[in-house]
Order: sequence, then C-alpha cells, then structure tokens
Amino acid sequence: MKDDTLIDARGLGAALQRFADERDWNRHHTPRNLMLALVGEVGELAEIFQWLDDDAAARLRDDPARFAHLREEIADVLFYLTRLAMVTGVDLDEAARDKLAKNAIKYPAP
Amino acid sequence: MKDDTLIDARGLGAALQRFADERDWNRHHTPRNLMLALVGEVGELAEIFQWLDDDAAARLRDDPARFAHLREEIADVLFYLTRLAMVTGVDLDEAARDKLAKNAIKYPAP
Amino acid sequence: MKDDTLIDARGLGAALQRFADERDWNRHHTPRNLMLALVGEVGELAEIFQWLDDDAAARLRDDPARFAHLREEIADVLFYLTRLAMVTGVDLDEAARDKLAKNAIKYPAP
Amino acid sequence: MKDDTLIDARGLGAALQRFADERDWNRHHTPRNLMLALVGEVGELAEIFQWLDDDAAARLRDDPARFAHLREEIADVLFYLTRLAMVTGVDLDEAARDKLAKNAIKYPAP
Repeated sequence: MKDDTLIDARGLGAALQRFADERDWNRHHTPRNLMLALVGEVGELAEIFQWLDDDAAARLRDDPARFAHLREEIADVLFYLTRLAMVTGVDLDEAARDKLAKNAIKYPAP
Repeated sequence: MKDDTLIDARGLGAALQRFADERDWNRHHTPRNLMLALVGEVGELAEIFQWLDDDAAARLRDDPARFAHLREEIADVLFYLTRLAMVTGVDLDEAARDKLAKNAIKYPAP
Repeated sequence: MKDDTLIDARGLGAALQRFADERDWNRHHTPRNLMLALVGEVGELAEIFQWLDDDAAARLRDDPARFAHLREEIADVLFYLTRLAMVTGVDLDEAARDKLAKNAIKYPAP
Repeated sequence: MKDDTLIDARGLGAALQRFADERDWNRHHTPRNLMLALVGEVGELAEIFQWLDDDAAARLRDDPARFAHLREEIADVLFYLTRLAMVTGVDLDEAARDKLAKNAIKYPAP
C-alpha cells in the first residue's frame, strides 16, 4: 500500500465479484439496479436511527443486538456502493482523493 | 496489509478526521446528522441515474462531465458512510467480513 | 372541495393524528424522526424495483402479491410525508400549488 | 368527496399529467425512473434537516427562507410519489385506507 492511499477496497471488490460470479448475479448488477439496491440498504440503515434520540444514537455500541444490526447495514451499504463503483468504472481511492481536494477548496480551513 | 483484508480505509478515516478537526465540525458529526447527510448524498447519486436507460447508465464513463459527477457523488456517499462508521465505532473491514460470511450462508453458491 | 384543489389530505391527516394520539406516539413524531422513517419506507419501496427490468416494473399490476406490496409501501411513504408536513406546518395543497407554478416557469411548455 | 375519503389527489394527478403531456415527458416517467427521481427529492428534503438539532427542526416555520425550501422539497417528493402511483396504477386513497387498517391490526391501540 502506498503511503498516501486513502482507501484500498481491492479485497472487498474481489470478494464481491467472486460472490456474484458464483451465483450468476452479474447480469442483475447493472448500475441502476445497484443504485436502487443501495437505496434499499440506506433505508434499512436509517430505520436503526429513526426513533432514537441523539444520546441513544451515540451509544449504539452499548446495545449488542442493535450494534450487530448497525454493523450489518453499514456493510450492506458499503457492498452496493463498492459494486456500483466497480460496474461504472469508478476507482474509489482516486475518487476520494479528488473529492477531498475539491472539498478543501470549497471549505477552506480557518 | 494482511492478506485477507477486505477494505482498508484508515487513510480516508484519518483524512476525514483531520478535515473535521480543522473546521470544528466534530460537534456536527453526530450519528443521526451523518445519517441524514448520507441520505442527501445518495439522493444526488440517484439523480445521475434517474432519466438514463440501462444502456446509457452502463456507458457513463464515455461522458466525461457525467463521469466526473458520478465519481464525486460516489466519493461523497463513501465519506459519510465512513464517518458514520467512525462515530458509531464500526470497523468497516470487520463488518464487511462478518456480513459476507453471513450472506454466503443466506445465499449458498450452487 | 374547491374547484382548484390539487390535494385534499385532511381525512388522512386526521386519521394519522388519531392513530398517533391513541398510541402516545406524538412524542416520537419529531421532524427528524419522521424524516428518517420516510427514508426507511422509501428504501422499502425501492427494493420492489431493484431487480426488475423496465418491462417488469411497468407490469407490476399483473403480479397480485407484488402489487399488494407496492400499494403498501407507497402508502407508508405517503403516511410519513403527510406526518412530516403536519408537524412542520406545511400545507400540502398550498405547497403543491406554489411548486407547480414555480416548475412551470423553470420548465416552460414548448 | 365521500365522507370517508382519506386523500383526494385527483387535481394534482391531472395537473401533473398535463405538465408531462405538454413537455413530452411521459416517455421518461417509467416506474424506475420516477423511483430514482423520488430518491433524489428525498435526499434534498433530508439535507434540510441534516445539521439541525431537534429544536431547530421543530421551529423551521420561524425561518422564512428555510421554510420556503422545506415546502418546495415536500412538494417535490409528493409529486414523484403521486406520479409513481399513477404510472403503476395505485390508487392513493384506497392504498392508504388498506394500509391504515393493516397498521391498526399490527399496532393495536392500548
């Protein structure tokens, strides 16, 4: 890994590709399908937080069942985001680097 | 990096933390705020695909302006997802590994 | 109903208010909670469409089980949108009229 | 209007249909396109709430510029939800009535 790598998701990309290959799912993994699937998972993630006040949301780790659920939904969002990037040809590390640089110009540090 | 790492986002996490520290944004980065911000970025990502047919969505790389936009929105979703994981104490690599294992049981390869 | 009413959701608003009153849910129905709940339901609605091609999506009515599911998820999104409007003081009919007028200026008919 | 009508959106439906007809937009208004457009508008609605605490979110009406924005985004979500219901053949009033009845069974009043 280069010193300045922001994110290295090659292992995850390869695992998700193998998962799709073994199940003949590649034909389902079009950009728009993956986009809608991402929305579905974001909805499940939002449900975890919908009735919590800010204190309870900040202490989700103290509730093992809810924290396990949170980990799963975050992983699901990550999976579809990674797949969407893969099928559209977006390199996550390069995209992150370029956007961070753009954000630093948009929101200069005081 | 261990051989079996799925995702290493330590560089991104450190960069996002520094970005928030320098701008005094940590007090805004509560789990529920980040969740809503993630939804906002997912909405911007969805807008890219909303009027495209499947062929056009699969050829976004051929349209430099749209592809640049796609890279930025994917990065923004990734940033808020990474921040949400950070403030809730979720390790992306471990969460991904556990969920992949669970998915492999739920959807056995034929 | 006045001739130019766009949407009259008073019956639904009253029914949802009664539903919340009877279950002591008003304290949960803050704007941000309702916003997150709306996102959860939009996610469930998106899941219906995620693996369908455009033809199948246009023929959902022909599949009674899926169509029943679609009706329920559309209703759930409508409920939280109506509640969010109620607790923030937005009149749906007036908001719709003003936005339609604005859209007609933004996108003039040819 | 019958006494037990929950929602009457016929005026809005007709206005949206005329709007689409005049601009030749019906070919764009497939269920999946409208679903993604709905997600885009939900994202814009979420952005209004993302950095607000619960108190500020409850007092949006006191901020004319933000309240005007809120009204517009709620209207936009309503428009795409109504259009999605139209093109998939879902009657909002019937769907709302059936789902309310189902919810009353799922969550019995104490």
